[in-house]
Amino acid sequence: MKTYELNNGTKVFKYGHPIETGAIVQSKIEKELKEELDILFEKGHAKISIKFLPNDMVYGFGGNLGGINRRGRLYESYCTDEPLHIEDKTKLYSAHNFFIISGKETKGYFIDFPSRIKYDVGYYNENYFNIEIYGEDFYTYIIEGKDAKEVSEKFLEIIGRSYIPPKWAFGYFQSRWGYEDKGKVRKVYETFRKNDIPLEGIFLDLDYMENFKDFTISEERFSGFEDFVEDLKKDGLYLVPIIDAGVKAEEGYHVYEEGIAGDHFCKNEAGDPYEAVVWPGKVHFPDFMKEDTQLWFGSKYKILTDCGIEGFWNDMNEPAIFYEQKALDEAIQYAHEQKDKNLDVFSYFKLKDNFTNLANKDSYYKNFYHEIDGKTVSNDEVHNLYGYYMTKSANLGLSKLLKNKRFLLISRASSIGMHRYGGIWTGDNSSWWSHLEQNIKILPSLNLCGFFNIGGDTGGFGGNCNGELLTRWLQLSIFTPLLRNHSAIGSNNQEPYVFSKEVLKNTRNLIKARYSLIPYIYSEYMKAVNNYTLMFKPLSFEFKGTLVEEVEDQLLLGDQLMLAPVYRSNQRGRYVYFPEDMLEVSFLDRDMATTVRKKGIHYVEYGLEDLKFFIRKNSIIPYVKPSKNVKELDLTDLQLIAYVDDEAFYKLYDDDGKSYDFIEGKSYLTNIKIAKKAEDYKINIDNNNPYIKNINIKIIDSNNNIIHKEI
Amino acid sequence: MKTYELNNGTKVFKYGHPIETGAIVQSKIEKELKEELDILFEKGHAKISIKFLPNDMVYGFGGNLGGINRRGRLYESYCTDEPLHIEDKTKLYSAHNFFIISGKETKGYFIDFPSRIKYDVGYYNENYFNIEIYGEDFYTYIIEGKDAKEVSEKFLEIIGRSYIPPKWAFGYFQSRWGYEDKGKVRKVYETFRKNDIPLEGIFLDLDYMENFKDFTISEERFSGFEDFVEDLKKDGLYLVPIIDAGVKAEEGYHVYEEGIAGDHFCKNEAGDPYEAVVWPGKVHFPDFMKEDTQLWFGSKYKILTDCGIEGFWNDMNEPAIFYEQKALDEAIQYAHEQKDKNLDVFSYFKLKDNFTNLANKDSYYKNFYHEIDGKTVSNDEVHNLYGYYMTKSANLGLSKLLKNKRFLLISRASSIGMHRYGGIWTGDNSSWWSHLEQNIKILPSLNLCGFFNIGGDTGGFGGNCNGELLTRWLQLSIFTPLLRNHSAIGSNNQEPYVFSKEVLKNTRNLIKARYSLIPYIYSEYMKAVNNYTLMFKPLSFEFKGTLVEEVEDQLLLGDQLMLAPVYRSNQRGRYVYFPEDMLEVSFLDRDMATTVRKKGIHYVEYGLEDLKFFIRKNSIIPYVKPSKNVKELDLTDLQLIAYVDDEAFYKLYDDDGKSYDFIEGKSYLTNIKIAKKAEDYKINIDNNNPYIKNINIKIIDSNNNIIHKEI
Repeated sequence: MKTYELNNGTKVFKYGHPIETGAIVQSKIEKELKEELDILFEKGHAKISIKFLPNDMVYGFGGNLGGINRRGRLYESYCTDEPLHIEDKTKLYSAHNFFIISGKETKGYFIDFPSRIKYDVGYYNENYFNIEIYGEDFYTYIIEGKDAKEVSEKFLEIIGRSYIPPKWAFGYFQSRWGYEDKGKVRKVYETFRKNDIPLEGIFLDLDYMENFKDFTISEERFSGFEDFVEDLKKDGLYLVPIIDAGVKAEEGYHVYEEGIAGDHFCKNEAGDPYEAVVWPGKVHFPDFMKEDTQLWFGSKYKILTDCGIEGFWNDMNEPAIFYEQKALDEAIQYAHEQKDKNLDVFSYFKLKDNFTNLANKDSYYKNFYHEIDGKTVSNDEVHNLYGYYMTKSANLGLSKLLKNKRFLLISRASSIGMHRYGGIWTGDNSSWWSHLEQNIKILPSLNLCGFFNIGGDTGGFGGNCNGELLTRWLQLSIFTPLLRNHSAIGSNNQEPYVFSKEVLKNTRNLIKARYSLIPYIYSEYMKAVNNYTLMFKPLSFEFKGTLVEEVEDQLLLGDQLMLAPVYRSNQRGRYVYFPEDMLEVSFLDRDMATTVRKKGIHYVEYGLEDLKFFIRKNSIIPYVKPSKNVKELDLTDLQLIAYVDDEAFYKLYDDDGKSYDFIEGKSYLTNIKIAKKAEDYKINIDNNNPYIKNINIKIIDSNNNIIHKEI
Repeated sequence: MKTYELNNGTKVFKYGHPIETGAIVQSKIEKELKEELDILFEKGHAKISIKFLPNDMVYGFGGNLGGINRRGRLYESYCTDEPLHIEDKTKLYSAHNFFIISGKETKGYFIDFPSRIKYDVGYYNENYFNIEIYGEDFYTYIIEGKDAKEVSEKFLEIIGRSYIPPKWAFGYFQSRWGYEDKGKVRKVYETFRKNDIPLEGIFLDLDYMENFKDFTISEERFSGFEDFVEDLKKDGLYLVPIIDAGVKAEEGYHVYEEGIAGDHFCKNEAGDPYEAVVWPGKVHFPDFMKEDTQLWFGSKYKILTDCGIEGFWNDMNEPAIFYEQKALDEAIQYAHEQKDKNLDVFSYFKLKDNFTNLANKDSYYKNFYHEIDGKTVSNDEVHNLYGYYMTKSANLGLSKLLKNKRFLLISRASSIGMHRYGGIWTGDNSSWWSHLEQNIKILPSLNLCGFFNIGGDTGGFGGNCNGELLTRWLQLSIFTPLLRNHSAIGSNNQEPYVFSKEVLKNTRNLIKARYSLIPYIYSEYMKAVNNYTLMFKPLSFEFKGTLVEEVEDQLLLGDQLMLAPVYRSNQRGRYVYFPEDMLEVSFLDRDMATTVRKKGIHYVEYGLEDLKFFIRKNSIIPYVKPSKNVKELDLTDLQLIAYVDDEAFYKLYDDDGKSYDFIEGKSYLTNIKIAKKAEDYKINIDNNNPYIKNINIKIIDSNNNIIHKEI
């Protein structure tokens, strides 16, 4: 074991010879450290057991199911394509090995290890947190701080600045697996415009490809793609195509041929390209661990950027495997042998399970190999890096192709480190109320692990959404950086206009509200990422006490807002806990009604036709008139709503939204200060944003007295 | 169409020539009625569309998933063995076609039809309730009343008095699929006794049978069964074996041979006994629609009653079918044909789905036939009656065998009518927090459909339970008539003693509390069943207002208690809405601490070590000292806790708990009245229960002043 320290005091313990994952960007300084985790090395695994104190909470674990407080759960880090997000699933697409234990003491832990880790967060025994690392070579990082917020900010610092999308990526996106051709896509676009619903872009699922082949465009269904993209772009509309991890093994297919020629594919034990079956049939997986493969695959995006595409989603990159031919052959053989037998029930279950369990078998990931620094390493050993390195490859490629132009890039699989290269969506959720509730809880957990450009599929991917669920989901997701309504083939359509008139009206207004609030949401995003702070926080990161710790269905957005979405059907409101006095705002109400809510629990009416949020004391929220897309957002008349007890501040960040010039300081700041002075207010505006001409301010005091000001 | 009226004013509309299901026991009087449902007959189906008013609520639908308010859901009545109770499943084991629409007007509807019905309760269009009946021959019943409570009581009256179990059936039962032999069962029993946890009996799952054959006992694993039963019974312990619907088709097996000889099995199209595969391999299904088959199958329970058994659970009686041989052969054949092919993804999905979807295919139920009044009717046409008539058969058999001795009988599948013959458990739930929440909501819905002897598998059947979940689940289920902790083979054990010391202590105390409260729970059960009232009610059945209507996680038990269980992990309490002032009782607190809760919303601390309930104003709760089983419950010192504003009443019902003599009036009543008089209380007790010798009363007034009285 060797020990190190990072600049911000993070302690590092190195066991054996870990594979360098690139999760941490700060350099390690060798230093003798005493304190370390009590680790038992046994049969090639490392086991850690931490005793809980009674009210310890556990935060973190990013993209996993469960509550904000992770205690009482089982988790597993081993990226997998899990289509059924039910409560007791222990693993999904991500491997986010950062967590904070917070109670009498607060400490953050990051286990930097790219293969399987299992966590029993006080599930089987409520008093212990047991961790099993499937290897002996890894780093652990221990971060101390006065509270969970401080620890989380230190962690964000050491893993490096998160990916920053263009501002248009903050628009509203429609998506569906099943927009089967150009005509269908155009029809969706036109129906949005006809119904006066803002629309920034449309995600293209597998439908656009030729036989599920990466970097191909179906001639039959999407002929003249370049013109099509250009045509839509004229009206400010972006198309965002999908790219899958597996490359179809088909002679004559350019990506396959180049991959073979360039030795870019993962190998099987015999040293030949490893073959598995996914959407296109037999595929090879690019070996994204190799730098030249990263560069090669990244360069392939050119085929689409040349058509005017500026955004992508990388999918199936756990990587998902439907089956290996050998496993299918065995299942078929076993089935054949059972023919005409009078099966007992156990043989029958075996026969059935052979087929049911074909996908993503653990054994597959031991059958293919990466080349890392000239060494051959099984995918199993670095399994959790696959989505990360695919997205890094895309990011490097796009950065070259698009130069100083930002791009939208999200991935399904991820581990910490990938946050610097792209965002994520939360995968294949369902049109369930419980998944709307889950969507609330996952946001701060993802932020904690460095992921900021995040969103769940609004309305739910699988299953049939209805108007009420879509409306309630939007009331949450219009606050998430990534806002995408996406659904699966075979499910009912769930575009905002397919339901009743009331649903159309309400969802239109909600999406417009999103656009009104983009200046604020973008500002909070950029400040969080650049300052290594959280955008979404649990209430317990800012307030203390049992009641606050138990709130799992409210969030803080920035330092200004509290969100409390309705996530059950048939509700005309909900209970909201106010940890301090706040200002309730009915943003879609004709008069934008406000109510001062005193600290405590209140039933808050929250209709389908409204958008509610709660402004913290001495906070200011900026917004503008809605527009049909980000390009047309107009800052000329900036609106502010301020809840002022004595002195309120807001720092509105803005930049060109397109380039990386902000890194060189090319950004705009509007510092706003509103101070109560006797019966009036003193307003200071320090603004270098040339687009803002007028500022209209609505000031509300703790008695709900309203004063309008104009500047 | 013919119209009728029942005694209590229920309107009856008869369409075509319905099959008589026996759901309704009151006789119909022909009467010309005008008002009827607007029904569209189309392609052999009947369609009904009801326009909702904005805040209409929908109650009913018994054993289905979802909320107390059923609006915004899809349902289907077609009994099925659904192992995965996820949110969007539209059908489970039951077909409970009673619902109440309650808003400005309130009306109850019962569709008496034994095959498939689909309900869109405002799901796809929030403004309409659409019903599709898969046939043209059925009755509809319309029940009017001033509110949902009155309508529900009228309905309970017309469907006849619910099944009444013996008092021992209110004890605590341990169960697990996987208590594989006598030794294991004895060990469980001994461990309960050793740990001083009350235990009334142990349910025996498939393990006890010889090769899954009904009415057999494994010689290898349960030899000397009669002595074993007798031995345990000496200590007051009951064994409750399972009986499955399918009879193994095996020559020489007595049930099979008798069934063939007596022509008792459902037929295939060719007129031979229909064959399907379930647990035992190939089985035949008894034709429970035939009276002589009912009598024959019912008489078979003698094999077990002769061993001293007095309780049974009828399972797999939707009936569940793993597969038909033909369907499996076809799946195998298709698989064989795909051998060595380079499958495209759609052929692969077909291959896989052929196996995945083998169970409970709709088509199977059209392949076998019942004989009804000499006519041949496919199972599909009377599908929802199968579990009902199997349980009726068991009830008739056991009534003959056990004479005036009551027996425990529950079934998995059910339709309305069966409630007179047995209770139900809620099927194969999972060890999920959301299923504990679901358990709360299903209780009043089941009562509305006549089912009173009900309970969910405490701790969850599938998946791995932990100590916190088991404890929280018990805090609810110690109030349900059926209290069974049951888990599946392959899951972790979940007996109260397998977790930590704290869990053992807390669960022991909760089970003891159950026994303390049995006099009250039994009294409420018997009064509800005999008076056609609900035992579990939504708050909205007694109180008015938006807040009350939206409460889905609190229940009223009888007229005395409100329950508000904690159903999320990591909670030290929860928000409780009080529709009026109530008395919070910490029943397991050393001093049984009480707090007066004013109308409104309160955060109520509710630890794992406690049992909380809320006594309504002017109500009295009786309890006694706990005992290890019902036989030893001692009423000598009756305890009362009373929350008295002016005058409180309680009518404690009791009887021998064993026989049906109560029908002839052989029961005990203890009428208690406590009236506030100036600074003291006047207590009237009118008691004919000879077991009660002393009454200790704790009176709490609206200022939480406590006075003790002894009588």
